[in-house]
Amino acid sequence: MEESVKLSWNKSRGYFPAGRRRFKDMNKIRIGIVGYGNIGRGVEAAIKQNEDCELAGVFTRRDPASVKISTEGAKVYAYDELASKKDDIDVCIICGGSATDLPKQTPEIAKLFNVIDSFDTHARIPEHFANVDAAAKESGHVGIISVGWDPGLFSLNRLYGNAILPQGKDYTFWGRGVSQGHSDAIRRVEGVLDARQYTVPVESAVEAVRNGENPDLTTRQKHTRECFVVAEEGADLARIESEIKNMPNYFADYDTTVTFITQEELDKNHKGIPHGGFVIRSGETGDGTNKHIIEYRLKLDSNPEFTSSVLVAYARAAKRLADEGACGCKTVFDIAPAYLSPKSGEELRAHLL
Amino acid sequence: MEESVKLSWNKSRGYFPAGRRRFKDMNKIRIGIVGYGNIGRGVEAAIKQNEDCELAGVFTRRDPASVKISTEGAKVYAYDELASKKDDIDVCIICGGSATDLPKQTPEIAKLFNVIDSFDTHARIPEHFANVDAAAKESGHVGIISVGWDPGLFSLNRLYGNAILPQGKDYTFWGRGVSQGHSDAIRRVEGVLDARQYTVPVESAVEAVRNGENPDLTTRQKHTRECFVVAEEGADLARIESEIKNMPNYFADYDTTVTFITQEELDKNHKGIPHGGFVIRSGETGDGTNKHIIEYRLKLDSNPEFTSSVLVAYARAAKRLADEGACGCKTVFDIAPAYLSPKSGEELRAHLL
Repeated sequence: MEESVKLSWNKSRGYFPAGRRRFKDMNKIRIGIVGYGNIGRGVEAAIKQNEDCELAGVFTRRDPASVKISTEGAKVYAYDELASKKDDIDVCIICGGSATDLPKQTPEIAKLFNVIDSFDTHARIPEHFANVDAAAKESGHVGIISVGWDPGLFSLNRLYGNAILPQGKDYTFWGRGVSQGHSDAIRRVEGVLDARQYTVPVESAVEAVRNGENPDLTTRQKHTRECFVVAEEGADLARIESEIKNMPNYFADYDTTVTFITQEELDKNHKGIPHGGFVIRSGETGDGTNKHIIEYRLKLDSNPEFTSSVLVAYARAAKRLADEGACGCKTVFDIAPAYLSPKSGEELRAHLL
Repeated sequence: MEESVKLSWNKSRGYFPAGRRRFKDMNKIRIGIVGYGNIGRGVEAAIKQNEDCELAGVFTRRDPASVKISTEGAKVYAYDELASKKDDIDVCIICGGSATDLPKQTPEIAKLFNVIDSFDTHARIPEHFANVDAAAKESGHVGIISVGWDPGLFSLNRLYGNAILPQGKDYTFWGRGVSQGHSDAIRRVEGVLDARQYTVPVESAVEAVRNGENPDLTTRQKHTRECFVVAEEGADLARIESEIKNMPNYFADYDTTVTFITQEELDKNHKGIPHGGFVIRSGETGDGTNKHIIEYRLKLDSNPEFTSSVLVAYARAAKRLADEGACGCKTVFDIAPAYLSPKSGEELRAHLL
């Protein structure tokens, strides 16, 4: 008797039974990327670094034919096709923006999939958590929100620091790094063609904290802001500089420098998206004579690629938790570190403990 | 009808029904300290900093009458009385040494209590884990071993770093800090009355790692050893110095300096037990052009008091896990960070995330 089998073909596998995974891929974590901007591309790159993960597809609201991805054999689908891929994806990483995309998409997609996002509007986290929690509990999925480095790894270090040194003070410094929001704000000033804003921690403030001086620091004492601005020809540079420096919320509370450069200089010297910063817990023990400093520092060449690497590690955790029967919304606080690693408990204890 | 009630009295509460806890203390985590050396004293001090914890008693192999503790109302008991306090203690923190105390005591006490220890003989962790796991599973308790900063917080940072930047290199530097083991080794040299040894990271090596140079470093290139030695009057200082510098395992592989000082100088300038160090993960993402540095640094005035503070935070986690029905042996890798904090999930998400 002959069996009729539908065949698929791709460059790396040749012909193979449609819909069947290779044995060596059977246990891989199948990740769907929803949204293909800087973070989506970063997630795709991070998946390639993790042998136990594979890209199950990219989902976009743009025309799929217009989106070119870098993973051989993987496909781009329309956002609306996501629901039809229910059996082909273990975890969706939602790579949209925190302002409008994630509040809508993460709860929506949690109805069908385990989800991870990097929601970073600190003030709205409780509300977002509640929405994702309700959706994920109803559908029996795991959602992990606000994954990245702040919120994310920095939050973890604030928590560990507070729990271990209850008598102490927290300090978080950001930078040197590009703030997309502040760069956008400058671009909205009349006469500005392009701009890049760097947030810079004040080194003397960081040093005072490291030395256990526990200073009370104002906004101005913690960070400065460096702006590199491309102006229209003939624009009133003095007015632009003044408008930037006095912009409420964004710059008025900081010592700000404005440097006018050409578009060529901007493209050549400021195209990267570096970032980083410090979380420092300064505390004391015993009768207060013994001081302790816990410092966590990130120095990142690419903010989106690093954030994406954190997202993929937590996707592994989501898959494992779901396999254990967990459901509902979680944050980095709720995830035991071992879940992030592809290594077994035995390996971790033998080599990393 | 009159009821006969046995009364107890102490300085802070006056008379109260024997065995009854004050309402405000009903939910406190009752911690037993087993062993009252530097770590035991540190745990006692840390309990005072954590309002949700209280000292249930100190257990010693010395004559209890000879041990003076600093917590009003708390008692010192003989080690053998521990079993009789089964209903009065939520978690025992075992504060003995890793060489002979903990391998025996932690599994033994895990038969009756939830336990925490700071077992730090890295090579024997798998064996110790298995012993504690068997005892804790049989009795239905939680054991958390190898808690502190290395193993402990440093291990956590090695795990997080490896999971997030799978393409990268790990570096751990220790110091500047006192090594008790190396100080003891010097004291065994003939003609030496007392000694203090500091392990010092080589600053240029740390800088090279921070700069993303990913150097291959030998033992000698990573740390130097500074020895402060009090010699007997008339001792052959050149021989002592040579014996120290050439001591296999301890000093022969390092650049070592030996400084002879008086006992008064040693007591005055070297009585503290500072320590600390760095865990650095240096990795790359994307096509390898973007480098990232994750650095975790501890600067500790008192190694035992800081270690003890970590132990108490994990005692909180042990109590909660046990309340949820968990049992068996765990390490810092298995504990979700939220369990360490007295704050609720809502509070943590609102204020630390």
